[in-house]
Amino acid sequence: MIFSSSSRLLYDEYRVQMRKIADVKNASAVLQWDQETYMPEKATAFRAAQIASLSELSHQLFTHESMGAILQELQSRDDLAEDEQINVALTWEDFNKQKKYPGAFVRSLSETASRSFHSWVQARKQNAFPVFAPDLAILIDLKKQETDLLGYDRHPYDALLNEFEKGCTVDMLDRLFPAVRQPLKDLLDRISQKPAPDDRFLRRHYPSQLQWDFGMQLILGAGFDFGAGRQDISEHPFTTSFSPDDVRITTRVDEENLDRMVWSCIHETGHALYEQGLPRPQYGLPLGEYTSLGIHESQSRLWENQVGRSLPYWTFWFPTLQSIFPDNLRAVSLKDFYAGINRVEPTYIRTEADELTYHFHIMIRYELEKAVLEGALRVGDISAWWKEQYRNWLGLEPLDDNRGCLQDVHWSHGSFGYFPTYSLGSFYAAQFFERAVQEIPGLTRTLSEGHTKPLLDWLRISIHQYGKRYRSAELCEKVTGKPLDFQSFLNYLLDKYQKIYDL
Amino acid sequence: MIFSSSSRLLYDEYRVQMRKIADVKNASAVLQWDQETYMPEKATAFRAAQIASLSELSHQLFTHESMGAILQELQSRDDLAEDEQINVALTWEDFNKQKKYPGAFVRSLSETASRSFHSWVQARKQNAFPVFAPDLAILIDLKKQETDLLGYDRHPYDALLNEFEKGCTVDMLDRLFPAVRQPLKDLLDRISQKPAPDDRFLRRHYPSQLQWDFGMQLILGAGFDFGAGRQDISEHPFTTSFSPDDVRITTRVDEENLDRMVWSCIHETGHALYEQGLPRPQYGLPLGEYTSLGIHESQSRLWENQVGRSLPYWTFWFPTLQSIFPDNLRAVSLKDFYAGINRVEPTYIRTEADELTYHFHIMIRYELEKAVLEGALRVGDISAWWKEQYRNWLGLEPLDDNRGCLQDVHWSHGSFGYFPTYSLGSFYAAQFFERAVQEIPGLTRTLSEGHTKPLLDWLRISIHQYGKRYRSAELCEKVTGKPLDFQSFLNYLLDKYQKIYDL
Repeated sequence: MIFSSSSRLLYDEYRVQMRKIADVKNASAVLQWDQETYMPEKATAFRAAQIASLSELSHQLFTHESMGAILQELQSRDDLAEDEQINVALTWEDFNKQKKYPGAFVRSLSETASRSFHSWVQARKQNAFPVFAPDLAILIDLKKQETDLLGYDRHPYDALLNEFEKGCTVDMLDRLFPAVRQPLKDLLDRISQKPAPDDRFLRRHYPSQLQWDFGMQLILGAGFDFGAGRQDISEHPFTTSFSPDDVRITTRVDEENLDRMVWSCIHETGHALYEQGLPRPQYGLPLGEYTSLGIHESQSRLWENQVGRSLPYWTFWFPTLQSIFPDNLRAVSLKDFYAGINRVEPTYIRTEADELTYHFHIMIRYELEKAVLEGALRVGDISAWWKEQYRNWLGLEPLDDNRGCLQDVHWSHGSFGYFPTYSLGSFYAAQFFERAVQEIPGLTRTLSEGHTKPLLDWLRISIHQYGKRYRSAELCEKVTGKPLDFQSFLNYLLDKYQKIYDL
Repeated sequence: MIFSSSSRLLYDEYRVQMRKIADVKNASAVLQWDQETYMPEKATAFRAAQIASLSELSHQLFTHESMGAILQELQSRDDLAEDEQINVALTWEDFNKQKKYPGAFVRSLSETASRSFHSWVQARKQNAFPVFAPDLAILIDLKKQETDLLGYDRHPYDALLNEFEKGCTVDMLDRLFPAVRQPLKDLLDRISQKPAPDDRFLRRHYPSQLQWDFGMQLILGAGFDFGAGRQDISEHPFTTSFSPDDVRITTRVDEENLDRMVWSCIHETGHALYEQGLPRPQYGLPLGEYTSLGIHESQSRLWENQVGRSLPYWTFWFPTLQSIFPDNLRAVSLKDFYAGINRVEPTYIRTEADELTYHFHIMIRYELEKAVLEGALRVGDISAWWKEQYRNWLGLEPLDDNRGCLQDVHWSHGSFGYFPTYSLGSFYAAQFFERAVQEIPGLTRTLSEGHTKPLLDWLRISIHQYGKRYRSAELCEKVTGKPLDFQSFLNYLLDKYQKIYDL
């Protein structure tokens, strides 16, 4: 009956159904946002059930046979517009992937992840990886099963990487990361020879409300639309979106540490500007969704680093910051401030790392995940292996598990293959920004005058408007004229640190 | 296949499905709460679609034929526990009612209500009922169709009243309201002969934050569990619940008017204590839901009025209030404060009415709705009819429509038959409290010492724990030993006003 419909009617039906599914997913996102921001503590159990019910429902709606029938029929029509063809093709791909998951497997994965999260929390309390290891081992077995369900050409890890960054493979990362590693290590060694800039001014007393107000100025200044979003407080900063007209970011404020708040605000704003820039008419459809996690991260990092740790940016903002905290910053020059916020120093904690050493944190996790999935590294040996790597690459003597392999929550959620997107994001960011500087007349000057609109407009036109139209690799080519090239990132770091460290 | 299952398995399946439906409804409630509290303004359209999708989904899940089959089979089993039988019977009743609504009718009603809400907003802006009237007329036609779909014995209005207060009929209200009206009018006339207590101290400048903090003390003092709920700010105060472990209330603060905040806090807390007291194991099932809107309102009004406008309550709280606002209240005695907050005076606005004249607002709306549904009053004549009634019963000269028939949002949502539950709530509250005083030793004294736990415990045991086990009429008999009796409310008012007004 459906199949005698005109393509117009059929596409409309597809669109209505997709928007309905998006509504359910976005409702779940609201519940999760509320959970992290305002929800009272005792609500945890009922809320977990509510989120699980919505996930189950959206999965059922999406994998329903009627959806398969519509998609299959639409695929055969030759009178769809190009946008429509792309949406249908991408949805069909996703549909076939989702169909591969048996209900029992999804439940088992979800239950194991819940249990693993709890044992991770317990392990953190006891500062002991062995408390987490048994559940992690079960979870990894399930992830291996998942790679079989999803299928892969060369390496099981490819199936997981592909979930977060379509087209990303072990082959690709095994070429990229070793090429990255040595130049970064060399640069780190050269920097380590030099005196480190003083950044103690960041750790004076910065009253909470004043920090918050300054953060809100930065967010507004970057072009965030507070009519279509808001910022709140949560334990870990994040960005979530319920539609392009409702994008929420969060931050945290540490009164004894200014950088906790400032660069998390700018980072999340970068994510949020991307979400606010997605095309509204494509809500619920692939062309209304972000390209990939790597591209999402490129937006947050471009704002956080290329913009938010640059001299032009602080040329504009530092006087304001000084006027808000005169006692803390009166005696600090712009040059010293800029050097301090760009201090390079190996750390145990990924989220506190500088722009350079950050990527060792990622590469270590990548090698670890790969080895575990291959069976080359046993779960029981993770803690020792981790310490070894941190000593090798960052010269850090082993501490405890909380400042080692227990520091990130990701594995307990079953997220394997996620970490590499953080490095990819940085590399894309450098390459995009390099291009932006070429294409936007006087970009550096406009930033030093507090004008971010030319940059935001360029990002909107070059990246945000496309949604999932291109894969990240294609998008990179389209925007910068060449494939992902780590050299842009290296040049960016070299240029910055040569000046700061007088290399 | 299902039907060969044991009753245990079958009931479990019913329970799982009902909890899933509750999860979807509660997710929708979170979205609505967010809409009223934190949502950015541009998000309106996408949010409306998200809420509509969830409503449609929960309706589809509930009226699915598999649910009908389970319910029908469970009805025939004789080995269910009593609680289980009650749940199944009540769900079956609800299922059959929901099945009466054709999908097209639900959509049409929902679209008309959306449009009516917008034209009500426009009409408010222009202060002109005729702007609202055409959509209201269409909406009323749909509500008439709804009464035919639902069916009724004697009066079409019965079908709508029954939605909010099961078993409530025109017959019942046509006996109750006239019996209420004359004694209340007589009391009002006697009061009007006497000098009115001064309440100008309520309209001094009360700084926002101090009001908020005091409100939070009152809420905590009443026994609200902040681990299982919270308070926020919204334009119109309301209570919503996502589970007994997550009950949210809102208030508004007017710096030039203390009573806006104080009694809305206590009122919403009364609603919230009921929701927090519902049995957790019955989540998603009728025994985990409130009895009726009338009983819900009895809880809010008991706390707001019998407790929150009583002399014992303020014997405890007034010194605290005085110490927070010494300049405003130093010269006000407890006796004068108590008299001022109980001042009786006819007003145009229902939500600002005192405990006595409030019921004229309700009875006028009841007669109006009944007449409109009967066809005895044309929509075009509502404004004139309204003014006439307010002159007759409250002696108020006609003003404009905003202070007349445009003041309430209810009709624009399609809520007809809702208003009477407000009066029923007051009458139940008086009858319950009368009983509580008899059953709780020294209740007045404990309230004057700031202890509300004995009262809350009594309400939990007498009312909250039962969920929908009894209809409101049965519950009233069980708690007080007699049917709903307006005399308790009248005695309560007489006793209060005789002392205050020296009648």
